[in-house]
Amino acid sequence: MNAAPAALVAEPLPASRKVYVPGSIHSDVRVPMRHIDVHPSARERGITVYDSSGPYTDPEARIDIARGLPPLRKPWIERRGDVEWNGRALRARAGRAVTQLAYARAGIITPEMEFVAIRENMGRARARERAERDGDSWGASIPDEVTPEFVRDEVARGRAIIPANINHPETEPMIIGRNFLVKINANIGNSAVSSGMAEEVDKMVWAIRWGADTVMDLSTGKDIHRIREWILRNAPVPIGTVPIYQALEKVGGVAERLTWEVFRDTLIEQAEQGVDYFTIHAGVRLHFLPLTANRTTGIVSRGGSIIAKWCLAHHRESFLYEHFEEICDICRAYDVSFSLGDGLRPGSIADANDAAQFAELETLGELTRIAWARDCQVMIEGPGHVPMHKIKENMDKQLAHCGEAPFYTLGPLTTDIAPGYDHITSAIGAALIGWYGTAMLCYVTPKEHLGLPDRNDVKTGVIAYKIAAHAADLAKGHPAARARDDAVSRARFDFRWEDQFNLSLDPQTARDFHDQTLPKEAHKTAHFCSMCGPKFCSMHISHELRTGAQASARALEREAGMQEMAKKYRENGDLYVPLERVVSPDPQ
Amino acid sequence: MNAAPAALVAEPLPASRKVYVPGSIHSDVRVPMRHIDVHPSARERGITVYDSSGPYTDPEARIDIARGLPPLRKPWIERRGDVEWNGRALRARAGRAVTQLAYARAGIITPEMEFVAIRENMGRARARERAERDGDSWGASIPDEVTPEFVRDEVARGRAIIPANINHPETEPMIIGRNFLVKINANIGNSAVSSGMAEEVDKMVWAIRWGADTVMDLSTGKDIHRIREWILRNAPVPIGTVPIYQALEKVGGVAERLTWEVFRDTLIEQAEQGVDYFTIHAGVRLHFLPLTANRTTGIVSRGGSIIAKWCLAHHRESFLYEHFEEICDICRAYDVSFSLGDGLRPGSIADANDAAQFAELETLGELTRIAWARDCQVMIEGPGHVPMHKIKENMDKQLAHCGEAPFYTLGPLTTDIAPGYDHITSAIGAALIGWYGTAMLCYVTPKEHLGLPDRNDVKTGVIAYKIAAHAADLAKGHPAARARDDAVSRARFDFRWEDQFNLSLDPQTARDFHDQTLPKEAHKTAHFCSMCGPKFCSMHISHELRTGAQASARALEREAGMQEMAKKYRENGDLYVPLERVVSPDPQ
Repeated sequence: MNAAPAALVAEPLPASRKVYVPGSIHSDVRVPMRHIDVHPSARERGITVYDSSGPYTDPEARIDIARGLPPLRKPWIERRGDVEWNGRALRARAGRAVTQLAYARAGIITPEMEFVAIRENMGRARARERAERDGDSWGASIPDEVTPEFVRDEVARGRAIIPANINHPETEPMIIGRNFLVKINANIGNSAVSSGMAEEVDKMVWAIRWGADTVMDLSTGKDIHRIREWILRNAPVPIGTVPIYQALEKVGGVAERLTWEVFRDTLIEQAEQGVDYFTIHAGVRLHFLPLTANRTTGIVSRGGSIIAKWCLAHHRESFLYEHFEEICDICRAYDVSFSLGDGLRPGSIADANDAAQFAELETLGELTRIAWARDCQVMIEGPGHVPMHKIKENMDKQLAHCGEAPFYTLGPLTTDIAPGYDHITSAIGAALIGWYGTAMLCYVTPKEHLGLPDRNDVKTGVIAYKIAAHAADLAKGHPAARARDDAVSRARFDFRWEDQFNLSLDPQTARDFHDQTLPKEAHKTAHFCSMCGPKFCSMHISHELRTGAQASARALEREAGMQEMAKKYRENGDLYVPLERVVSPDPQ
Repeated sequence: MNAAPAALVAEPLPASRKVYVPGSIHSDVRVPMRHIDVHPSARERGITVYDSSGPYTDPEARIDIARGLPPLRKPWIERRGDVEWNGRALRARAGRAVTQLAYARAGIITPEMEFVAIRENMGRARARERAERDGDSWGASIPDEVTPEFVRDEVARGRAIIPANINHPETEPMIIGRNFLVKINANIGNSAVSSGMAEEVDKMVWAIRWGADTVMDLSTGKDIHRIREWILRNAPVPIGTVPIYQALEKVGGVAERLTWEVFRDTLIEQAEQGVDYFTIHAGVRLHFLPLTANRTTGIVSRGGSIIAKWCLAHHRESFLYEHFEEICDICRAYDVSFSLGDGLRPGSIADANDAAQFAELETLGELTRIAWARDCQVMIEGPGHVPMHKIKENMDKQLAHCGEAPFYTLGPLTTDIAPGYDHITSAIGAALIGWYGTAMLCYVTPKEHLGLPDRNDVKTGVIAYKIAAHAADLAKGHPAARARDDAVSRARFDFRWEDQFNLSLDPQTARDFHDQTLPKEAHKTAHFCSMCGPKFCSMHISHELRTGAQASARALEREAGMQEMAKKYRENGDLYVPLERVVSPDPQ
């Protein structure tokens, strides 16, 4: 780490302050959340939201990129007494499994588990009092309130993972599972053609600022080790990689020259650095390859195509498949989670849900059981390009074949015809599959299929996926999800423009769009916007109605034939209730 | 029309040419389509796509905004012999119904019906040969091929409408119905605060260039009549309005002063100008208003709130409801289609699917039957803000209450938390409800809730909704839908970058994004992009695999235990088939 990256954005979002909720089982657990304040006229306290941005949005934190973030989890890891220092990194003592899965199975509630319970639970108990639960979770088991024991149980069953390498103590623990909030991943990483190290660290900080829950470093250039080091030391979120990319660099880019030894050493190198999850394409089996023969777009996974090339060149099963137990042993010694890669995922609508894809998925199920037997945490990667009517089958088959291990999908894109807008084609599919039960959604940026995303693309992709994930949480009936929607809507109806901006996913863009036509400060409290103007503002008229409503309502009751409705009206209270009753004094 | 608007974009899209398909029943029917050519190396003819852009993309057409478009339908209207000139406009002769519904019921296949049959059918018969039908249409009855008789039957049943005012002969007929391609509407129109006439005409031409099937002019300023005249005379797509806006202008913006007479005269004025469909909020009944009392966001429809205010002020049912039969008689005399407005639609997730909304929907069903009895064409407007799990109920209730009249929804937005990105929050809902059976999707732009959309917002909104509509067509299993996806994907797999751009919804943006990182001309044929670089391009590797596949495959067969797979492989042909067999010589 000898070159500082460009200046990062390290300041709170508008009207937001960092709050920390303490643990009760583990006294050194402090869970960061973001509280958004609203105008006093709202007579509510604002809302507390999930916060993936790390210390970068805490004005109290001292950010020093060259030193990295404080090692939050270090004491927790050391306290367990099951790791040793090998001169370069921590690893499990001989015979010990240091995975969250192993602890969960042993009945231990780790600080990581209590941390994620508090984190997921943010405002949940109080939210439940306000809104009845309402949703269709397609068979998930989302509790009213997340307890540390619930987290432990879900991890022990393999239905959720907490990616947390013992060599990445900077992570603020987070959980990926169908019964928790839907998470999103942002891919960053340079390619041989474009982008440098400083740029990638900046993209990571930028991605988590807007809500990325994990980040994958997909770098393929020559600085691959060093860029990863910078990212890891400054990342408060789990970092995933595809180790075959670096292994391929080590053999000069010639897939056929890959060996188990090169790959194994790469895994250990990355595990020692602190990578939290590995994409491993061990499901690409030799005899599945002919199933891709008639495809429109062949094999579109980078890792999948590299392994396919190796398999065909050597006429044998891949070293990933043949050495899978040894890979498990490495993951177990550092608590690197598996993200079992879908190397044969469809790259076009034409290839969706085909035999190659589902054959691989069954193999991923077999591999899940092997990894679980060795105490490794596992999630399963999914497609890709899938039209809407074929999405549910992906979720159903994944649940059936992979024992409810968390599903982690790329989109899926619901049409191929809109390069330049694939954040939208895929947000549609992501929202749907998230609703059906996918635990984490891998974002797609507007540059997909066209080039390497820049900073703006990263933000656009993250926001599109926060929308998809939140739409899924709402549809699943997550008990805390609607609080933010309701807060935005109350602000909108009350013409609290500043609050509407600040409560939204991207305050700056909302404000900029508003100011393009009504820039004056006075318009921030105006009871209209340029969309309809003052005379045609329905919300303005609704407020007028509220004022005159009582008299009108009395007249209504006098109307012949209106008796029944008048009765209903009385039961419902005033036509428009006073502001005090519309807005809750405390939405948390 | 005494001030020319700004210069319009009037040129073909890249690699595209206008083709006209002649009618066989009516010799003067010529249906415009857009043919996109591809590179000769593709050994396919490119594809023909639906084209809403009108003469503006035909280099042969002479565009003169001051004169307007040629009156394409004039001879068809005159030939029917059922209209007369009243000094200002055409109207039905006494006692005659000049609606497409009346003709359809009489067993007449009009030129408009043959036109839309050919238009919908574009490439369909040939597409069927290539791809088996695959989809889940939720009970729709989408034929393999659209015949003029099928169109007539659907219109006669009220399951589809062809909005086509006899005073808007410039329209190229289009159809809105569940068993046809999903359509999209773009709203334009100034407000008192922003935007002028020239700007609005330009927005209309811009919106249809990118795929808007109809345009609603929602202007509310003082130039309302003149701006509508400019738009209508230059619009090759049906134009919809909300007449209550102009009526309100006539009474100085004071809702209580509205009268049936002012409204009636406004309807006639607009019908004579050529408006193709009217949003009429006749379902806002007096006794429904108390049902909105406890809502988070009250009444958010502009028209709905105006009518609600009138009803409460006068303590009576609206003149829209009381005079509905007379409104029908006006619509019948010009063939103005009804778009029965959802004045009580929910404006927030909190208010979705509530009693007020569904009470109004039932009333819209009653009104539909009244309009049908008078030979009027009808579609039904729908919400609004609805979380994913409540969307299907909207479609089901609409089908049940409104006798399968086409549904026309605004989004719906699936969350409230992303102002600035509501084209995305709503594209998710629009794709879903389109799949479930909604016939037309009203776009939402990034400026929704914040301000009046500009030209860029219009384009972004249209593209987002073309994506939603197409994703819905694919999921419904529309037999011609997948041809374009497959063409894009073949181009992508063959590294025909130019073709990939040209076949996409927005060629310019796709090209710009690609060129940001690889601007050189040579890169347009490069077998990689900046996303992965040359060494990690999975498609590049797939092509290499294809080359070496035959030898590898023979070796595979020799492997012990691989006999069965080898047999499968032989049945499937070569691992990667030659390019000639992957790409179809004629995908049309």
